[in-house]
Amino acid sequence: MMNKNAPIGVFDSGVGGLTVVREIMRQLPNEKIVYFGDTARVPYGSKSKETVTRYSSQIVRFLLSQEVKTIVVACNTASAYALDEIEKEVNLPVIGVVKPGAAVAVQATSNGKIGVIATEGTIGSKIYSKYINEIDPSASVVGKACPLFVPLVEEGLWQDPVTDEIAKRYLTELIDIGIDTLILGCTHYPLIRSTLGRIMGEGVTLVNPAYETARELKELLEKENLLNDEEAKLGDNKYRFYVSDAAEKFKRFANSIIKYGILSAKTIKIEEY
Amino acid sequence: MMNKNAPIGVFDSGVGGLTVVREIMRQLPNEKIVYFGDTARVPYGSKSKETVTRYSSQIVRFLLSQEVKTIVVACNTASAYALDEIEKEVNLPVIGVVKPGAAVAVQATSNGKIGVIATEGTIGSKIYSKYINEIDPSASVVGKACPLFVPLVEEGLWQDPVTDEIAKRYLTELIDIGIDTLILGCTHYPLIRSTLGRIMGEGVTLVNPAYETARELKELLEKENLLNDEEAKLGDNKYRFYVSDAAEKFKRFANSIIKYGILSAKTIKIEEY
Repeated sequence: MMNKNAPIGVFDSGVGGLTVVREIMRQLPNEKIVYFGDTARVPYGSKSKETVTRYSSQIVRFLLSQEVKTIVVACNTASAYALDEIEKEVNLPVIGVVKPGAAVAVQATSNGKIGVIATEGTIGSKIYSKYINEIDPSASVVGKACPLFVPLVEEGLWQDPVTDEIAKRYLTELIDIGIDTLILGCTHYPLIRSTLGRIMGEGVTLVNPAYETARELKELLEKENLLNDEEAKLGDNKYRFYVSDAAEKFKRFANSIIKYGILSAKTIKIEEY
Repeated sequence: MMNKNAPIGVFDSGVGGLTVVREIMRQLPNEKIVYFGDTARVPYGSKSKETVTRYSSQIVRFLLSQEVKTIVVACNTASAYALDEIEKEVNLPVIGVVKPGAAVAVQATSNGKIGVIATEGTIGSKIYSKYINEIDPSASVVGKACPLFVPLVEEGLWQDPVTDEIAKRYLTELIDIGIDTLILGCTHYPLIRSTLGRIMGEGVTLVNPAYETARELKELLEKENLLNDEEAKLGDNKYRFYVSDAAEKFKRFANSIIKYGILSAKTIKIEEY
């Protein structure tokens, strides 16, 4: 019997998954969260499937040691490469960010032309096409890897002419194709949403899988009768953050994304899990 | 008794150290080289001292398993954080890139104002100041972390208006201070040397520690009577490349830096060393 008052485990390659945490906090304000960011081994987007899967398995073992009731893979690359493996390994409900994002894009599109921007790994895996075409085989999906967005976001250049210029280069081919829906297929990208929206123009819907992931998580917890029925108070270890390196830097970045102060961030040796 | 026909071990966080390999190949054409690039865990520049030291020790154990006769730490961040530890662990001559770079900068400066551009880790360690002031206590050293240079170089934007713009932002304060010597304190930076030189202007000497490192390595091998006296032929496993991830991608990048074809690049599990 699962403990409904246990925390939700969330992980990402680094700080990007905090955009998913932010949505979970908004939509599920009673839930406790244990977050792990793999800041020692970030980025995942340029690594191989084998490596990302090995790293993800270690993190899942860490989250299990924290007695979580469910796991959210808040990293598109890990969702693309490792979700099947994680589902095999654990006996808990597991949610990735790709499937919810794909589902909402199919609902949003009118002309059936959907663009996906993401890391090299996520684009190379063609995972968004797979899920989208399972729902709507006639939808046309065009992927574009945008490897500079993560470092630009991590450098804080969220509103900056350089980010504009790089975004124009990456997005031109998607504009030319005439997509009407663009999936932000990396958890860092919602942080430059206004830049992306301005360049794509008003006719294009931007899909942030974080929102839909939190919504599906809520449905799942309801269905499994796992919603937390205590009123968890902030400060009572409600939100716990762990990283594999540089906890102080993580804390500063996290506080710029999440409105609550990050009460603590601890460094752990993830290779030992 | 050391085998003088054994290879030289060289390592870096990823591909940047190949600029050092290129210099070793030029200055020591008879030597065999075993290179390890930690492509699974790159970048090192934003990681903590503890993590970089742990990773470096694993790599040193791998290189020892390849029976190298000497070790070149071709990564400024690892040289800054881990060189002392490595020297304690092994019984071989070890050379980092920082000390040679510092020495040549002191020779090059006329006005005693030396700039250093590097990763956050290298700048934060103040290691260049330490070595420079050991040689010339009156020299004034100003460091500037340039975290976007590595991703821009890895994206191939070596000659690009975006790299120009970012470089101008990073370098302005060094120009304003009136430095006459600039150390390229990260092994990726020689690949954007022409951009950096144009922005700094003709009056500023750019110091590439790779060149000086290869020169010191040559002196060291001579002194220790360790120069290879066979005529090593290309193809005879003369140059061997190992990485922790994505060997094919590494090979493509390496071939754009080094003139010889990279004959092979193999992926190994570095955590197991």
